[in-house]
Amino acid sequence: MSRNDRKPDEIRPVKLEINTNKYAEGSVVIEVGDTKVICNATVEEKVPPFMKGQGRGWVTAEYSMLPRATHTRNIRESAKGKLGGRTMEIQRLIARALRSVVDLQALGERTITVDCDVIQADGGTRTTSITGAFVAMCLAVNKLEEQGKLKRYPITNFLASVSVGVVENEALLDLRYDEDSNAAVDMNVVMTGSGEFVELQGTGEDRPFSRAELNQMLELGEIGVQQMISVQKQALGANALKIGNHEIGGLA
Amino acid sequence: MSRNDRKPDEIRPVKLEINTNKYAEGSVVIEVGDTKVICNATVEEKVPPFMKGQGRGWVTAEYSMLPRATHTRNIRESAKGKLGGRTMEIQRLIARALRSVVDLQALGERTITVDCDVIQADGGTRTTSITGAFVAMCLAVNKLEEQGKLKRYPITNFLASVSVGVVENEALLDLRYDEDSNAAVDMNVVMTGSGEFVELQGTGEDRPFSRAELNQMLELGEIGVQQMISVQKQALGANALKIGNHEIGGLA
Amino acid sequence: MSRNDRKPDEIRPVKLEINTNKYAEGSVVIEVGDTKVICNATVEEKVPPFMKGQGRGWVTAEYSMLPRATHTRNIRESAKGKLGGRTMEIQRLIARALRSVVDLQALGERTITVDCDVIQADGGTRTTSITGAFVAMCLAVNKLEEQGKLKRYPITNFLASVSVGVVENEALLDLRYDEDSNAAVDMNVVMTGSGEFVELQGTGEDRPFSRAELNQMLELGEIGVQQMISVQKQALGANALKIGNHEIGGLA
Amino acid sequence: MSRNDRKPDEIRPVKLEINTNKYAEGSVVIEVGDTKVICNATVEEKVPPFMKGQGRGWVTAEYSMLPRATHTRNIRESAKGKLGGRTMEIQRLIARALRSVVDLQALGERTITVDCDVIQADGGTRTTSITGAFVAMCLAVNKLEEQGKLKRYPITNFLASVSVGVVENEALLDLRYDEDSNAAVDMNVVMTGSGEFVELQGTGEDRPFSRAELNQMLELGEIGVQQMISVQKQALGANALKIGNHEIGGLA
Amino acid sequence: MSRNDRKPDEIRPVKLEINTNKYAEGSVVIEVGDTKVICNATVEEKVPPFMKGQGRGWVTAEYSMLPRATHTRNIRESAKGKLGGRTMEIQRLIARALRSVVDLQALGERTITVDCDVIQADGGTRTTSITGAFVAMCLAVNKLEEQGKLKRYPITNFLASVSVGVVENEALLDLRYDEDSNAAVDMNVVMTGSGEFVELQGTGEDRPFSRAELNQMLELGEIGVQQMISVQKQALGANALKIGNHEIGGLA
Amino acid sequence: MSRNDRKPDEIRPVKLEINTNKYAEGSVVIEVGDTKVICNATVEEKVPPFMKGQGRGWVTAEYSMLPRATHTRNIRESAKGKLGGRTMEIQRLIARALRSVVDLQALGERTITVDCDVIQADGGTRTTSITGAFVAMCLAVNKLEEQGKLKRYPITNFLASVSVGVVENEALLDLRYDEDSNAAVDMNVVMTGSGEFVELQGTGEDRPFSRAELNQMLELGEIGVQQMISVQKQALGANALKIGNHEIGGLA
Repeated sequence: MSRNDRKPDEIRPVKLEINTNKYAEGSVVIEVGDTKVICNATVEEKVPPFMKGQGRGWVTAEYSMLPRATHTRNIRESAKGKLGGRTMEIQRLIARALRSVVDLQALGERTITVDCDVIQADGGTRTTSITGAFVAMCLAVNKLEEQGKLKRYPITNFLASVSVGVVENEALLDLRYDEDSNAAVDMNVVMTGSGEFVELQGTGEDRPFSRAELNQMLELGEIGVQQMISVQKQALGANALKIGNHEIGGLA
Repeated sequence: MSRNDRKPDEIRPVKLEINTNKYAEGSVVIEVGDTKVICNATVEEKVPPFMKGQGRGWVTAEYSMLPRATHTRNIRESAKGKLGGRTMEIQRLIARALRSVVDLQALGERTITVDCDVIQADGGTRTTSITGAFVAMCLAVNKLEEQGKLKRYPITNFLASVSVGVVENEALLDLRYDEDSNAAVDMNVVMTGSGEFVELQGTGEDRPFSRAELNQMLELGEIGVQQMISVQKQALGANALKIGNHEIGGLA
Repeated sequence: MSRNDRKPDEIRPVKLEINTNKYAEGSVVIEVGDTKVICNATVEEKVPPFMKGQGRGWVTAEYSMLPRATHTRNIRESAKGKLGGRTMEIQRLIARALRSVVDLQALGERTITVDCDVIQADGGTRTTSITGAFVAMCLAVNKLEEQGKLKRYPITNFLASVSVGVVENEALLDLRYDEDSNAAVDMNVVMTGSGEFVELQGTGEDRPFSRAELNQMLELGEIGVQQMISVQKQALGANALKIGNHEIGGLA
Repeated sequence: MSRNDRKPDEIRPVKLEINTNKYAEGSVVIEVGDTKVICNATVEEKVPPFMKGQGRGWVTAEYSMLPRATHTRNIRESAKGKLGGRTMEIQRLIARALRSVVDLQALGERTITVDCDVIQADGGTRTTSITGAFVAMCLAVNKLEEQGKLKRYPITNFLASVSVGVVENEALLDLRYDEDSNAAVDMNVVMTGSGEFVELQGTGEDRPFSRAELNQMLELGEIGVQQMISVQKQALGANALKIGNHEIGGLA
Repeated sequence: MSRNDRKPDEIRPVKLEINTNKYAEGSVVIEVGDTKVICNATVEEKVPPFMKGQGRGWVTAEYSMLPRATHTRNIRESAKGKLGGRTMEIQRLIARALRSVVDLQALGERTITVDCDVIQADGGTRTTSITGAFVAMCLAVNKLEEQGKLKRYPITNFLASVSVGVVENEALLDLRYDEDSNAAVDMNVVMTGSGEFVELQGTGEDRPFSRAELNQMLELGEIGVQQMISVQKQALGANALKIGNHEIGGLA
Repeated sequence: MSRNDRKPDEIRPVKLEINTNKYAEGSVVIEVGDTKVICNATVEEKVPPFMKGQGRGWVTAEYSMLPRATHTRNIRESAKGKLGGRTMEIQRLIARALRSVVDLQALGERTITVDCDVIQADGGTRTTSITGAFVAMCLAVNKLEEQGKLKRYPITNFLASVSVGVVENEALLDLRYDEDSNAAVDMNVVMTGSGEFVELQGTGEDRPFSRAELNQMLELGEIGVQQMISVQKQALGANALKIGNHEIGGLA
């Protein structure tokens, strides 16, 4: 099973459409290969109870898959009456990643919730969600800025994510579903525009992995994230220049 | 508030795209004005426990809205841990309507589940779901037929739905959200290609309604459903001819 | 299966007893044939959060069946841990119907909750609940009036409900359970004392229905509702005269 | 607050009507003072999984209160999505008590479920439920016997229950709600027709109680239970003679 | 099956270790034979909503078993999504018992929650929990006293609990699990240091029990409780003298 | 806040006691500093439905904290009615890690469930759970081997875990709670006895981290894991020699 649609260090074609929802403050439809996610950012002028009165904002995220985003139909979590462990794990990851590049003080006492709904899944739904959610969040922040509601621009750096893995002893970038299911090792890499890590989650699904394999995967991850950030910059246009132009982070 | 985007007896522009999902046996994206619903039909070779061994099939449906399908964000039902009354009511309606034009004996001992996920809501999400779900179901049935799995074609008639209402004492066809919120009376009409009723649900939201108003609404409903069925026929192409070519129903 | 206990356009014997509960502000036990429902109205001096501070009241309803109200025992919804779709649909219908004849401004900032508990079910439990709940609500309102808590009488019209259907191509009024299970078409009609519609819910359970059949059912519905309202008036006695004596509705 | 409706060692008027439900195998409406409970017994030809294939039957019970059985309205447990601790405690008690007088071997591999639904509550709902549930169970068993389905009569003894308590240092039998709320000590006594204890649950609500007080309460309990059993015998008529006429228990 | 580890009127070896948790205001590990329970008391400076502003405190308790506290593994209640009836019954009992020896006025507007987590179960987990929870509560109260937060010492009496039962017609004190599973009658006795009853819960698991048997069990219970209280006094040391030195109860 | 209880590359004192539960097939109490976890392994002769009939075994884990394992009391997840995201994330991690060193074929069609219950938490509860759970699993497997139930020894390698982090720009091994709350970067490292990675989860809690920082943390992690494995070997004694003596992994 050698990859034949592209080289081991190449990502799949990425399509990122913005302003796709007439109500959301920020909205994106992102496609990475056949994986397709709708990311809608909502701004609400309130924060969770534990943060009230601190003058700081909050960023959170939710993740879900349509029942038929996958080969066979999954029962809805709303019908089951509870969120599964995988869903919770992923939405906690997305939210944590987004917050790592937001100056919550600058955001002010309001909440941005980014909903990532997977319409079609072909591997990398959580990394694709992060990459798309970042842009949806930027668009919502831009709207706040246009309305003069922000003291300073709160997004401190670009943020994107890709999956990497080891399949049949070969390190691969951006795994399709069929590659992912056969991966011995599987890693999600979330990085900033400055080339630093925000989240690293590596799992030896099938066998442990060596330091050398880890290094190989990290290098592929860096390549992939940089390409994702290029797509983000293109989608954001002139607004991309605002990101990171302040004391906290530096633009790549 | 007189309607200015079209005449009282006109429906909004309808767009119906088919085969939009690479996994689902039947898939449709339907837009009626700014209301946009993804309808995915799944075929499973089993029936619910209470129907086992009877040689008959089953058709069911589920309905959901993305959190930001609406002006403000709604909390996910999966996060709340239960389906709301509105959701249950709607998905029971969709399923009942679909079953009314399916010969379950002809379908054989298998289940078709049609998932209707509202991506954007601007009035008429339940009627739009029915109209789209019918086509998704047809596509799934066509795939079964191509695979030689059906004794005879099980869909007995076309099926579509529109909303009608009375706004400021004027009967209107196909209400937008802003019209719906101001409607004194609100009715959902589900009809077959033969012009018969499958479901009628009329509510005097603001005040009771007279027999004369009912009649006016029914006439608008009939006009709207016929237009929806034209769109369905176009989307199904040559396959549309199969529907109803047998003993149970008659093609309009 | 021709009906032999009465003519097609006749309702079953109706028994409506009032003040059956020593705690409830309004209480009724209603029997329509072998269908028996306890309706208790509770007045609480508060409104739901979304209505606070508007000076308007609220009317809501809940519906439940004892486990052995039916031929075989049903598992309690409290034991299942959630309300079923049918229950939600019915209690939403009852509440909506009651509100349609209440001037919420006149009620003042308080809530009336009518609990409809089906003790024995033999068809028409939701229509019987509406007919009984209306009287329980009136009794609770009368108590508020006696206590001088109302600016003006808030009930604007009588309200009752019956089921109609088509069984073996014959339109029937007020279906027993065995008729209902064999009905091709099934419709619930909720009307005011002025002969206008509040809710119409018609379903082609077994086959679609024509405009002619719809008209036949509506006529039977009107007959049935008028008879139910006669029973209500008798139960309410002199108090019945207050209903609708004001600007909004007119007494039949 | 000295009791003025009867003497300290008297129970309230008891009314026990049988065959009140047209579907249930055994049905009773029992009133003890203003406390009113519907008890319906259902026979199902199956046992819980953990008892399958042992040739023994099972007896279980469920307990619920209508929302307005009490002074103020309680939220339904079905709406809350879970049974409260009090409900679970009570229905476990009822079921345990019933089983103590049933020879499960003689019952055969079937389940009797007795539903106790409190229509109106004025103290002693759990003890009244036990007293009524016993009769409903007997009626269901009698039906099984008439159908020739039993090897031998499975009910081994009479069973009834009353509450006793200490209010203002006076021991009282069969507490009304207002007495119960002021009781320093509260005890539920479940006894057989042979005068033996099946369950004793005493609680020092307000203060601990002495051995002497315990003895006083037990004597009142015995008096009350015997009176309840007289009412049961009258309701069961000639059938009462069957109970306990076999090797396990002895009729009082 | 005659008991051979000790005489019928003897309790198992008791071990009570205090201050076992570095965070809890009061903490105890209690072992009665092979039954082992961790009791942690938490003080929070708030009361439940229904008690706000009355100047009185509250005492509550929670009970749980580790999945493998028993011979075979039990599914966690957190995984099931709800507390079982047995758990609710037990934690209500523990809380009620603790409150019976606390002067809530003296405690002041704060809550003590005692968590009883069973690490290993060999009969008598609820009675052992009560005996341990009492000491954990005392330790937490002592801490409040040392901090000068109490007007007067709120614990009015000692409190402990043991199980008693009838196994093969012999009354036994403090049942092991194997004895408990074979007991015809089973009773939990909760008493104060003054020898009065706080809770009595007796169940004829296998057969009814006579007044004579009840008396025998009560005598054993008294013996057992006194021994448990001796252990408590030893663990509390000099602080034990404070308990009950005030107007409400008297120290044994 | 420079660490003063030990050097940056030192772990806290570790205590690992075995056979602490009289029922569990494998049991361990592990303490790492003030973090204390009970790990009980249960063997059940069945596998989850999705694995039936494949001749392979399964290993799973559950994780929970006592309410007062922490500075302030946490509400029980059983009382909330659902598992939180953090719990799910952790128990999925523990289970995945354990499975990575088990030859499921060799285990045979049975399930080992390791329950990790945190009695006291002072940082590193998930890594401590993994280290303890591995030993509990080994003990359970040893029991199976003694009973002659295994074809070959199924544990292929040692497995342990530590946390590492960056606090005030200093990389630290095995973080206490106060260090963890101040960590800019936080990483959990799970490794085998052969020095390979099984899981890596790094999070830039406060700021992104560089490749250099990652490398520093990985080196500390390796040191810590080797020390944990020494403790495990000592606890397992002679049995430690069996681990990895077969074709799949190699003993360090």
